[in-house]
Amino acid sequence: MKYLDKIESPADLRQLPLEALPEVAQELRQFILEKISRIGGHLGAALGTVELSVALHYAFESPTDRIVWDVGHQAHGHKVLTGRRDRFHTLKQEGGLSGFLKRSESEHDIFGAGHASTSISAALGIREGLRLKDGPGKVVALIGDGGLTGGMAFEALNHVGALKRDMIVVLNDNGMSISPNVGAMSEWLSRKLVGQPMTRWRRRVRHVLEAFDDHGQDAIRVIEHLLDATKAAVVGPGALFEGLGFEYVGPIDGHDVIVLVETFRNARELERPVLIHAMTSKGKGCPGVEDDVERKHAVSPFDLESGKSLSPSKAGGGAPPYTDVFGETLCELARSDPRIVAITAAMAQGTGLVPFAEEFPSRFYDVGIAEQHGVTFAAGLAVEGFRPVAAIYSTFLQRAIDQVEHDVCLQHLPVVFCLDRAGLVGPDGPTHHGVFDISYLRMIPDLALMAPKNEDELRHLLLTAINSGKPVAMRYPRGNGVGVPLDGPPRELPWGKGEVVRSEGHDLLLLAIGPHVYTALQAAEELAREGVAATVINARFIKPLDEELLVEHIGRASAVITVEENALAGGFGSAVLELCEQRGLSPLVRRIGVPDRFIGHGNVTKLQAQCGLSVEGIVAAYRQLVATPGRHLAVAASPVA
Amino acid sequence: MKYLDKIESPADLRQLPLEALPEVAQELRQFILEKISRIGGHLGAALGTVELSVALHYAFESPTDRIVWDVGHQAHGHKVLTGRRDRFHTLKQEGGLSGFLKRSESEHDIFGAGHASTSISAALGIREGLRLKDGPGKVVALIGDGGLTGGMAFEALNHVGALKRDMIVVLNDNGMSISPNVGAMSEWLSRKLVGQPMTRWRRRVRHVLEAFDDHGQDAIRVIEHLLDATKAAVVGPGALFEGLGFEYVGPIDGHDVIVLVETFRNARELERPVLIHAMTSKGKGCPGVEDDVERKHAVSPFDLESGKSLSPSKAGGGAPPYTDVFGETLCELARSDPRIVAITAAMAQGTGLVPFAEEFPSRFYDVGIAEQHGVTFAAGLAVEGFRPVAAIYSTFLQRAIDQVEHDVCLQHLPVVFCLDRAGLVGPDGPTHHGVFDISYLRMIPDLALMAPKNEDELRHLLLTAINSGKPVAMRYPRGNGVGVPLDGPPRELPWGKGEVVRSEGHDLLLLAIGPHVYTALQAAEELAREGVAATVINARFIKPLDEELLVEHIGRASAVITVEENALAGGFGSAVLELCEQRGLSPLVRRIGVPDRFIGHGNVTKLQAQCGLSVEGIVAAYRQLVATPGRHLAVAASPVA
Repeated sequence: MKYLDKIESPADLRQLPLEALPEVAQELRQFILEKISRIGGHLGAALGTVELSVALHYAFESPTDRIVWDVGHQAHGHKVLTGRRDRFHTLKQEGGLSGFLKRSESEHDIFGAGHASTSISAALGIREGLRLKDGPGKVVALIGDGGLTGGMAFEALNHVGALKRDMIVVLNDNGMSISPNVGAMSEWLSRKLVGQPMTRWRRRVRHVLEAFDDHGQDAIRVIEHLLDATKAAVVGPGALFEGLGFEYVGPIDGHDVIVLVETFRNARELERPVLIHAMTSKGKGCPGVEDDVERKHAVSPFDLESGKSLSPSKAGGGAPPYTDVFGETLCELARSDPRIVAITAAMAQGTGLVPFAEEFPSRFYDVGIAEQHGVTFAAGLAVEGFRPVAAIYSTFLQRAIDQVEHDVCLQHLPVVFCLDRAGLVGPDGPTHHGVFDISYLRMIPDLALMAPKNEDELRHLLLTAINSGKPVAMRYPRGNGVGVPLDGPPRELPWGKGEVVRSEGHDLLLLAIGPHVYTALQAAEELAREGVAATVINARFIKPLDEELLVEHIGRASAVITVEENALAGGFGSAVLELCEQRGLSPLVRRIGVPDRFIGHGNVTKLQAQCGLSVEGIVAAYRQLVATPGRHLAVAASPVA
Repeated sequence: MKYLDKIESPADLRQLPLEALPEVAQELRQFILEKISRIGGHLGAALGTVELSVALHYAFESPTDRIVWDVGHQAHGHKVLTGRRDRFHTLKQEGGLSGFLKRSESEHDIFGAGHASTSISAALGIREGLRLKDGPGKVVALIGDGGLTGGMAFEALNHVGALKRDMIVVLNDNGMSISPNVGAMSEWLSRKLVGQPMTRWRRRVRHVLEAFDDHGQDAIRVIEHLLDATKAAVVGPGALFEGLGFEYVGPIDGHDVIVLVETFRNARELERPVLIHAMTSKGKGCPGVEDDVERKHAVSPFDLESGKSLSPSKAGGGAPPYTDVFGETLCELARSDPRIVAITAAMAQGTGLVPFAEEFPSRFYDVGIAEQHGVTFAAGLAVEGFRPVAAIYSTFLQRAIDQVEHDVCLQHLPVVFCLDRAGLVGPDGPTHHGVFDISYLRMIPDLALMAPKNEDELRHLLLTAINSGKPVAMRYPRGNGVGVPLDGPPRELPWGKGEVVRSEGHDLLLLAIGPHVYTALQAAEELAREGVAATVINARFIKPLDEELLVEHIGRASAVITVEENALAGGFGSAVLELCEQRGLSPLVRRIGVPDRFIGHGNVTKLQAQCGLSVEGIVAAYRQLVATPGRHLAVAASPVA
């Protein structure tokens, strides 16, 4: 490629004449297309920001100027332009580049980003830091129109407007975040507001007119025209930002790199907050992606010529994803239970709720990237007797823990939280691993917490949760189920009860949750070959624990190992330790789970193995546990009744 | 009182003629003033909403119409009008009324509220519930201008505007939340925006004018006047809400009960979202409160005649509050460390940061009720080499756990979180108890977590945290310190090290954090009289635990008791259990802390005692622990090296 091959840093880009930029953008688009078509990924957002990436690095001098990206899917072009072109094909792979912004990866990644809506807050902090130390450099925050639906972005805009520092916010408006936006804001941005009633305004105008009655009809005609023109201008998308203290510039064409550069250059001269509203198209330049709502977010590897996916289709055998089983089961239950309503935070596709949205449009709510509101909105629905099911990724529910506690559980409202992507998610890495939910939910009184061992149990537990009339959270992993048959219509499982899935002896008791019940079963078989007799329990309920069952078996076992895909700090294993403490049991115990460090991105099976979450890991833990020199074998007490 | 004495429910109020309402309001104001002057409390907000409370319950028919309050401080008048007049004097006292909204207390408390910014979300959920079940009733949400700075309120407005249902939001705008607001929004609300540049608008107007050039100067003059009039009207506070799809009504006088009733009656006829902007004055009708920024939030009992406080002043001896020691120490440290900046989320007074704000105005940030933004904003400052200290109540940091994890710790940024009000807070009850922070922070890799045993140790730990260059959280309770002398200038304490504060033998090891180190010391003395030889350790660091010290002492002790004012699920005691598991120790152990249920409001010492957090509780726990029949005394293993 004529230009791109020579761009090792933004400084190289800035050496080029302005006229070359359209071609640079074209090369960059082609480069991203080729790479992502091979490895799959968030192509839509990356293609939508090609010109923005080029223009930002041309008009600003990173890293002296601080360019703060949001979410990270948008920043693929930025990665290519900042010295990571040659490693770009390693994106999201083990040892390769992160799919998101990462401070340790480049000095140009001034702030890490995986979750949405953080960029303006971080940029304002950076801006204040530069002011306080009198450092050089301009600060630019990018944010998508989806990110803007997140409340913290508004909190940040409000603070920027109050501080009145020079800072540039670039709104990358592609008319959709992950799925099309649903908020009033997105309507505003798309300027459908010309018809809004503005009675007060009209009244005021009339009042002024009366003072000029000697001009009579002439003035009236002027005013009539003025109304249309100014209404569009004033109550267009700019009014919100102008009202919050920003100079509003736009909307401009986010794919015209020359216009972008000129706009950025003008903006950097202003001594106050500026918001530049750039219109872009997600998937720009790749028809198959640009036109397909689903593929706009993320694609699997595909053939560049035909546009056809290279991965086997879902229908091509294999177990269905947990996500799909959840979505289909919810539809099934909703047909006979009118209390069921479903809520997603901009993740209808990712959480499997598209079929529900299609079948029950009036009982489905996409609140935008707004988990806090989504949870309390669900609580409101529960007040009126409904059984809201809020499907939110484990990592994103971290945004709404207070609402789960304060608005749902404290008020005993029967909201069911379905936590998809619980556990290690693999390629998306540390910003997206769902490895904390057991710890942050287990502390909340009144909340039940369950994890199905497979996709069939998910169906039964979903019904159990909905019918319980209690606040419940259910966690299940990313990816495909284990491949069991779906066992008849969903039925209620006994509340708070686990199950013994293998009962071969008392040398070892394996207590597992989620699909790691199968890992534990395999480990038990492996150990059986060495003469170790193991029992395996699917705890199913992390809270309330099946105390009766657990105490009985812990009391008998020579050794106990807990297995979970959650942080060890405060997780399921800790719940078992707490139970032992309460019941006066001192088993020989070892917990397996995610250790107290951030886990990187890569192949999920390998990441699990690093945490000891594998057959080998469990076997090794057992050997180490019983071999510890000087370690007494605890004699279990008779359980306290 | 002529009217109030006969109002047992809103239905009684609605029997009165409209003309009587000003007198009802006057009686209600007087009633609240008299009661709160005796018991203390959030008088300012209560007095500011007297007319709103009367008008809402006159124009709407609660509970068929759903009135959803925010925060709860505003709802004192509502409580009096909804059958709780005779119990109003028990507010916030043990067995008495909650200081906040509480569903179990009244059918008129349709949604509980203690934390801010939740009302619109809950109301919208309720509104959708009514629609789906075709139930009668209008839905009204109240929110203060402070609550509106919280991002979730914006998320909710965005969703309301998108759904376009009839729903009424009443903005109670007193020009301040707890302290005066700092956001751009509050400037907007106070209509200071007439001078904002609106270049695009002017350009567009000019363009229209050119088409009318035959009217020449006449038109120009019309336009000039029009600019001022329409700018004020259109880009006044209404534009934001109109833009989001609301019919905006206001600003109206929030103390004119007749105007309020008429406005509400008109609003309930509209078939779309309406926002009513009512201007009120916090502390209205009580000069000593209305004029005093600090007393506007909460007052201690005072003499109604003189307005003088009946409580002994802070200066009158006794130990200083942790809050004050924190604030003063931060000033002391900031004088020699220019890296220190301070952040509060609308709680400058409550977190002790007022002296810092006065001494270092350019290094102090009040972000509004916006904990999410506040945390990520702090992370941005840390990127530039600063040492941001974010002082946030334990219960409010629940709003920003994701930001602590994703924006601070994952990026290894040295933000110091100072969690005031950690533990049981007493009268404010379950919405405000800070009893979860150890559980929700301990799970986060890379975050250190400390708790000083007294106000002097707080000073040293604050310096230790700031100088560590790591993300650190420090928790300390509401109320006064233990009364130790402040021991010279702050000095760094050894990282991750606890201290043995009593070493008398190995019958019992007491592991305590925070001021409960003193409770443990007293319990040890009590037990010594019975011949039990106890050692007491101030763990100081909850994470990283002082493993060396703890393992050594646990290995020796016949029994171990942990003491913390946090949820037992995942708390400090669980960390000790996890350590024992990792190191192959099986001590006889009992954890004391907050059990797995929501704790009510009341006297803090009594609430602690209910949790066993008292000398008697510790002594009883020891006796029970060693007396458990059939329980073996664990023989500790030699610690694994």
